[in-house]
Amino acid sequence: MPIGIFDSGVGGLTVVKAVRAAYPKADIVYLGDSARVPYGTKSPATVSNYSHACLNFLLSKNIDLAMIACNTATAFGLKSLQATSPVPVIGAIRPGAISAAITTRTGKVGVIGTNGTIRSGAYAEAIAQVDSTIQVYSTACPLFVPLAEEGWTDGEVPLLAAKRYLEPLLENEIDTLVLGCTHYPLLSQTILEASKQLGCELSLCDSATAMATAAGEFSPADGEGKLDLYVTDDSGIDAMVKRFLGEECKATLVDIHTTSKP
Amino acid sequence: MPIGIFDSGVGGLTVVKAVRAAYPKADIVYLGDSARVPYGTKSPATVSNYSHACLNFLLSKNIDLAMIACNTATAFGLKSLQATSPVPVIGAIRPGAISAAITTRTGKVGVIGTNGTIRSGAYAEAIAQVDSTIQVYSTACPLFVPLAEEGWTDGEVPLLAAKRYLEPLLENEIDTLVLGCTHYPLLSQTILEASKQLGCELSLCDSATAMATAAGEFSPADGEGKLDLYVTDDSGIDAMVKRFLGEECKATLVDIHTTSKP
Repeated sequence: MPIGIFDSGVGGLTVVKAVRAAYPKADIVYLGDSARVPYGTKSPATVSNYSHACLNFLLSKNIDLAMIACNTATAFGLKSLQATSPVPVIGAIRPGAISAAITTRTGKVGVIGTNGTIRSGAYAEAIAQVDSTIQVYSTACPLFVPLAEEGWTDGEVPLLAAKRYLEPLLENEIDTLVLGCTHYPLLSQTILEASKQLGCELSLCDSATAMATAAGEFSPADGEGKLDLYVTDDSGIDAMVKRFLGEECKATLVDIHTTSKP
Repeated sequence: MPIGIFDSGVGGLTVVKAVRAAYPKADIVYLGDSARVPYGTKSPATVSNYSHACLNFLLSKNIDLAMIACNTATAFGLKSLQATSPVPVIGAIRPGAISAAITTRTGKVGVIGTNGTIRSGAYAEAIAQVDSTIQVYSTACPLFVPLAEEGWTDGEVPLLAAKRYLEPLLENEIDTLVLGCTHYPLLSQTILEASKQLGCELSLCDSATAMATAAGEFSPADGEGKLDLYVTDDSGIDAMVKRFLGEECKATLVDIHTTSKP
């Protein structure tokens, strides 16, 4: 039975890429809720409602493991999804938190993410569960998602934006930075370059890689290595799929929510 | 009876501001569909569905004039909203197009907007209806919306982004630039500065001012000058209302669409 993975849009394809690299024979059903992207700017109630709709769609595809490839949806929806889901649900936050706790040597960890993820405090909580002596500093970087979706992942604009966001964070002498949003791995090089220009050498932890590791706990079943991609809006989707997945893959348009039509 | 104005989010408050300046005694009901913002990256079908839901909500408030304070919703939804609405519907595009046609001296006009608005070709069509000899050059500036919402409206990052977007457009020797998105007036100074640094003196036409002018055709009724603000998601909304409206105003949370709940 396939692994179901969902995200607000295409950012979660960085997780699909990592899961496929780790378990090339696993079948995957992916849903990007691109009609309502982004989640990171929206309220807990809205994000939780949307997340339930996404999981319900994936369950209709007979998955035996669900992965929330969206940090905001994890922050606001994981507990309630786990409480109602008939299959295990892996969130995006705990795996990255564990990875950061293992990586840091100074005991000072930075976390960047969307407004929603940062405001939720979910990373600080998850890191404290692993090691309560670790100090966590966090900041929201709302422009990183649109920069990654626009494909402006290197050059002056993202570099300056990264320096502006990271400068106050780096004053806390962190040695490890959690990329707490599945879009951010596309900006890794720029984030490292910005940190270097600000005088810091950072280790980056991204939730995509950590989630693929966490999936191992559930022994993903061998299948045909199929990837079925569904989206709720198809505008400009092919180019974005290629950018985030690293290869072409045709997406199927689905309506997972009823709108008030005229 | 009040004027109803809607947008995907808070950007349309630049229109509210212009309408209130022009008709201080008119009552206004505003709906920002912040649970599904932005519209500018989404497909015609999705945007048209969302727009109908917004108009239906405003009609339930007994408005006698509807204004679409969103260029993308106008590009994809105006005709179908006008066909079904019992009250007149003013879109965001025609007023700005007329204003640009009147302003240009060289007959070369630039248009910037979201991906959806630019791809639709609606401005080129509307300008041609006024004066078919005018040449229209357009480019999408997808990062301008998140920059305005983040409050990064001046400084290096928006200036560099503006130069990157505008440089190819300015090679066409335009003398007039339409700000074809209700978020963009917040970036006016940066857009003018970027153009100047690229060697151009531009006249800017924004749809907010032009739409307020167009509303005059329907003689807005005197009321108490009330503004009722509704949003579909309230995350971070107070700060954004202040940024776009220029003053504080409490928003009421409403659910205008059913989601597939668990």
